[in-house]
Amino acid sequence: MSLRAMSSYASFEFELDRVIAIIEERGAKKIGLQFPEGLRRSALQMAKKIEERTGAIVLISGNPCHGACDVDESLRTHVDVLFHFGHAEIEPMNKVVFIEVRSDADVIPALKQAIKLLKGRRIGLITTVQHVHKLGEARDFLTKHGKTCIIGKGDSRVKHDGQILGCNFSAARVDVDEFIYLGSGNFHPLGVTLATSKRVIIADPISNEVREVEPEPILRQRHTIIAKALDAKTFGIIVSTKSAQTRMELAERLQEKALRKGLEAHLISMDEITPERLLSFKADAFVNTACPRIAIDDAALFKTPMLTPIEFEIVLGERSWDDIKFDEM
Amino acid sequence: MSLRAMSSYASFEFELDRVIAIIEERGAKKIGLQFPEGLRRSALQMAKKIEERTGAIVLISGNPCHGACDVDESLRTHVDVLFHFGHAEIEPMNKVVFIEVRSDADVIPALKQAIKLLKGRRIGLITTVQHVHKLGEARDFLTKHGKTCIIGKGDSRVKHDGQILGCNFSAARVDVDEFIYLGSGNFHPLGVTLATSKRVIIADPISNEVREVEPEPILRQRHTIIAKALDAKTFGIIVSTKSAQTRMELAERLQEKALRKGLEAHLISMDEITPERLLSFKADAFVNTACPRIAIDDAALFKTPMLTPIEFEIVLGERSWDDIKFDEM
Repeated sequence: MSLRAMSSYASFEFELDRVIAIIEERGAKKIGLQFPEGLRRSALQMAKKIEERTGAIVLISGNPCHGACDVDESLRTHVDVLFHFGHAEIEPMNKVVFIEVRSDADVIPALKQAIKLLKGRRIGLITTVQHVHKLGEARDFLTKHGKTCIIGKGDSRVKHDGQILGCNFSAARVDVDEFIYLGSGNFHPLGVTLATSKRVIIADPISNEVREVEPEPILRQRHTIIAKALDAKTFGIIVSTKSAQTRMELAERLQEKALRKGLEAHLISMDEITPERLLSFKADAFVNTACPRIAIDDAALFKTPMLTPIEFEIVLGERSWDDIKFDEM
Repeated sequence: MSLRAMSSYASFEFELDRVIAIIEERGAKKIGLQFPEGLRRSALQMAKKIEERTGAIVLISGNPCHGACDVDESLRTHVDVLFHFGHAEIEPMNKVVFIEVRSDADVIPALKQAIKLLKGRRIGLITTVQHVHKLGEARDFLTKHGKTCIIGKGDSRVKHDGQILGCNFSAARVDVDEFIYLGSGNFHPLGVTLATSKRVIIADPISNEVREVEPEPILRQRHTIIAKALDAKTFGIIVSTKSAQTRMELAERLQEKALRKGLEAHLISMDEITPERLLSFKADAFVNTACPRIAIDDAALFKTPMLTPIEFEIVLGERSWDDIKFDEM
């Protein structure tokens, strides 16, 4: 038996039988479940099935969950096993089992449309974990249509070939003319365009929409934010307490750089980084060393400029304005 | 030298010299600072002074901080000393120093007005930590005006005589005709009225406003929320991961009660409990075993009924509707 969550176009596989088998095998009595926002609707149903079939006590994490870097550490200390759904493991963690939650969406219809937008012959294929099992099929399809397909190998933080994270585009560092990104959302393919300076075509297997990434609007927005930070005298440098997002050395280095330029800079330690939490700090600008997506995705929400470490170097005059990249880990 | 934050009517004492002395005495190299929202405007200035005078690295907590029960555990593990401002210690914690941050506001003008609203002769005096050092002066003033003043002793979670917490009104369990509450806000005195069934006069030394607590509007709101939860089939029972707020046994007991009545109930583990974080859970109602204020203060924000454990007993038919009290720890 398997538990599946239906979206309008595809269903997702939660591997309930495997979860039950792991609980029984380990004799676990207290179980933690953690879901990203998009899969949370299935949480209570999943808890119910596990309770019914194993008799274990189930605790569901109600905290936000943005990636495999975002394991609920507190819940982990209180349970025998923590099942973390929807993300591929970045590094093994004691008691944590990552259930990747694959989509059964057919990738061919979107690829059929995407192929019309391609200009080159050597195509890099990239995706997120939900579709990573479909990359072979995608490569076969494109090869049949006369393309040479490259599926890059990421660095040690990336589990699957061709997989990119919101903070890691290493699987896109391959010798190709352009990319096809299989997936939803703009952030990942935007990062690949900025990291590689190459065209990226988004082919979304869930909505069957296809479009080319346009980096200009976001670059204009970033330039505006950097410009606003040029007059800042006091900076708040944010360090994450999420262990896989903590970059304390980077934060201290940025603080020293600021001090050498006669600026004031203070370290702020946070788990979730939201505009409301920063409102009362009297800083003229912030620099985010935590999850690289925060400064970009939530840009419009922050009243005070929120810079990436790379953008902070531009503010300090140590990097050229043309050399904006997305921050990576 | 001392650092003081000015509000419109009073200043608050951060005890900078004492903080510096503790850092030097302990040879601490890495310092954490934690402030509740209302004092956070002074955070960067405080960090600057400490850095200048000790050379230590300072990390400011950017996470919410609602009480002494809300120590930033993650920051604590990363520093040699964590200074927690604005709350009195509930229990001693390794590496944590509580700096209570007293207000210098004069309490006499507000008392002069409050005395006109009193009906009885035996008056209980209660307050929060910011004004607790003024209770003696307040008692002397009221005694001179013919009142008998009682300053109650709280239980083990309460540090000062006459001090009440948002989750603990034990210092108000005294034999009096009515109370004067020295402080701002409605929550604490409301809790005292509901816990004791006695009149409470609020005398606010910051704004110099005086008024009688009116529990009826909040009781009507609670009745509405309980009524909405009567048809609920699936409950989410929230357990806090903040160690001083964790009531796992209570949560499990409530879950069992629900199951015995044929209802569905699942445990949800959270640090900050906000309406947005609960949106995706398909529960008909929630029960909050964490900080008792959440269900009450944020009642209007939760789209799904959020009950206290006491109110959940009313829903289950185990307690009478007339017997609503604020939840206490």
